[in-house]
Amino acid sequence: MFKLKMVKKLAAVAACAAVLASPLAMAEKTYRLKLAETWPTNFPVFGDATKNMAAMAEKMSNGRLKITIDSANKHKSAFGVFDMVRSGQYDMGHSASYYWKGKVPNTLYFTTMPFGMTAPEQYGWFYYGGGMELMNEVYGEFGLLSFPGGNTGNQMGGWFQKEINSLEDLQGLKMRIPGFAGEVLAKLGAKPTNIAPGELYTALERRTIDALEWVGPSLDLRMGFHKISPYYYTGWHEPATELQFLINTRVWEKLPADLQEILRISMRTAAYDMYTQSYHDSAENWATMKQEFPNIQVKTFPKDVIAAMRKANDELLAEKAAEDPMAKKILDSQAAYMQKARAWTDISDRAYLNSLSD
Amino acid sequence: MFKLKMVKKLAAVAACAAVLASPLAMAEKTYRLKLAETWPTNFPVFGDATKNMAAMAEKMSNGRLKITIDSANKHKSAFGVFDMVRSGQYDMGHSASYYWKGKVPNTLYFTTMPFGMTAPEQYGWFYYGGGMELMNEVYGEFGLLSFPGGNTGNQMGGWFQKEINSLEDLQGLKMRIPGFAGEVLAKLGAKPTNIAPGELYTALERRTIDALEWVGPSLDLRMGFHKISPYYYTGWHEPATELQFLINTRVWEKLPADLQEILRISMRTAAYDMYTQSYHDSAENWATMKQEFPNIQVKTFPKDVIAAMRKANDELLAEKAAEDPMAKKILDSQAAYMQKARAWTDISDRAYLNSLSD
Repeated sequence: MFKLKMVKKLAAVAACAAVLASPLAMAEKTYRLKLAETWPTNFPVFGDATKNMAAMAEKMSNGRLKITIDSANKHKSAFGVFDMVRSGQYDMGHSASYYWKGKVPNTLYFTTMPFGMTAPEQYGWFYYGGGMELMNEVYGEFGLLSFPGGNTGNQMGGWFQKEINSLEDLQGLKMRIPGFAGEVLAKLGAKPTNIAPGELYTALERRTIDALEWVGPSLDLRMGFHKISPYYYTGWHEPATELQFLINTRVWEKLPADLQEILRISMRTAAYDMYTQSYHDSAENWATMKQEFPNIQVKTFPKDVIAAMRKANDELLAEKAAEDPMAKKILDSQAAYMQKARAWTDISDRAYLNSLSD
Repeated sequence: MFKLKMVKKLAAVAACAAVLASPLAMAEKTYRLKLAETWPTNFPVFGDATKNMAAMAEKMSNGRLKITIDSANKHKSAFGVFDMVRSGQYDMGHSASYYWKGKVPNTLYFTTMPFGMTAPEQYGWFYYGGGMELMNEVYGEFGLLSFPGGNTGNQMGGWFQKEINSLEDLQGLKMRIPGFAGEVLAKLGAKPTNIAPGELYTALERRTIDALEWVGPSLDLRMGFHKISPYYYTGWHEPATELQFLINTRVWEKLPADLQEILRISMRTAAYDMYTQSYHDSAENWATMKQEFPNIQVKTFPKDVIAAMRKANDELLAEKAAEDPMAKKILDSQAAYMQKARAWTDISDRAYLNSLSD
């Protein structure tokens, strides 16, 4: 009896297989998402993060989640990613949160801050210390979800044509350093400017500017600044630049639970992987730079210059906290977290590294 | 005509839906894998990594990949994980590669090495510097695949009842420090011992041993050593302890491509997440320890002690390289990678952290 039932059932199943081209075709709807990235086509490291994310999502979903990536060359709006995802023109974005600070001031705090957390400290804050919740409190108001999108690691302080030996040397210093770090330097008498990436090399070579910061060896090598600048200063202004993935909440909510999880984990892994890749590429490219130009001098700003920059930074942040309760909430959370995390960093990685130096 | 065809097709589909309880039931076979972990039930951090991995895999696969976890309390063979996965008794394992060095000497190099790489350096080596390929060359011979399984971050040098001010102080020092690091100390006259975890507190309190190392604040807090030991030494012997996932190759090959990718990414993310969680828990627990016992003294071994330990370590590694070409291949790869990566660490995170100190 059991066997007969089975035979009948199998016959019916076979008939069904003929009706449905694939038994999965109906239930397994394909979701196609469009992502706009701030970067130009095939931009290294940052562009690898989006490709890595999309490839993982497609493979894990067996093709049910397909994400196409439009670079800035296509959508022509590198800094319009926030608006394009908010309006629904794109489903997702890949960019950096601090690019929207002119529009939504509190997005500033989710990329990196001068004298702020290192990458492992900041991942601790995002994932275990309340950072994700605060970030999505800010983005939620705009119908958006935001996720960490990849870390560059510590960014270098920049290429300088002359040494900075005192605060005096910052007076009138023309430096390409956009954003909040530029505000810090302006308070100390420097003249921050912004210049299009394609014109930076010539501006530095012809001394139209005295200095510039870009990223670090991972992306500086191809820019060629090491060929024309003798001093490479260590970092202070972007200790752990985290990019971001943005998703329109309505798009997110239409995805079934398994694809939401596949997307969440693809973004999370792509972000961590970008940190590892940045570390690797920086190590490789710094070795190349040193070999080609052994006279590059690595410098750290003098203690009194660092102290003055920290003071200027603290004053600017205090102004922001006084103006906006949400800014205060985020800054307080970061400061409290960093105090604990840095105490640990100091007795672990820092003590270890210093114990090995001569 | 088109409409009529559609109606007929939909009717047939409806009939099929009645035949098959779920249209996915046939094609979507559920794969159940059994994982043996070295840790006891609900062990913090390490045990969270396996649970996190299994939860991601199940959710991303919509229940098609179910991984059950047996802790050491169940399988009664904490250090038999390698054998149990190799024999097929378990499909997967979660442990640390250096536990099998007595059986397969070249597994030693894939957890962490004294005076070796930090966590971001080591992830660079694994994922972008050839480390994964070397690890799977070693494990492949045994029908196993190995993946990074979570990093503790820098481990502390341990709790000491007396200060170490010179090499003299290491003579006859009774210290619980198992494995390769113990061999290094033995070369310098110390007496490394191994003692069961449950007896460590009493042994330290009664001075049966002079010192011990465990992990770091993330796992040391619950052991209570800070209540009975005045000196907490900074790390040298395990700068970035990476756990591992093991999978039997035959099991892996039976999984469809999408589930292989889901499993690979679940392990990768769980590993990265464990590094972040370890960082977070260390920061929190170190703050707690300092508050409860403000007199804990953090110490770094003197320069000449560090130099002697490095020399002993280098000599032991040179012996291993001379005995075994594969050991030499792995050690050469690590040394070359670390040279580049450390040069980058020194001008990035280390310079940044040092520039902020008084």
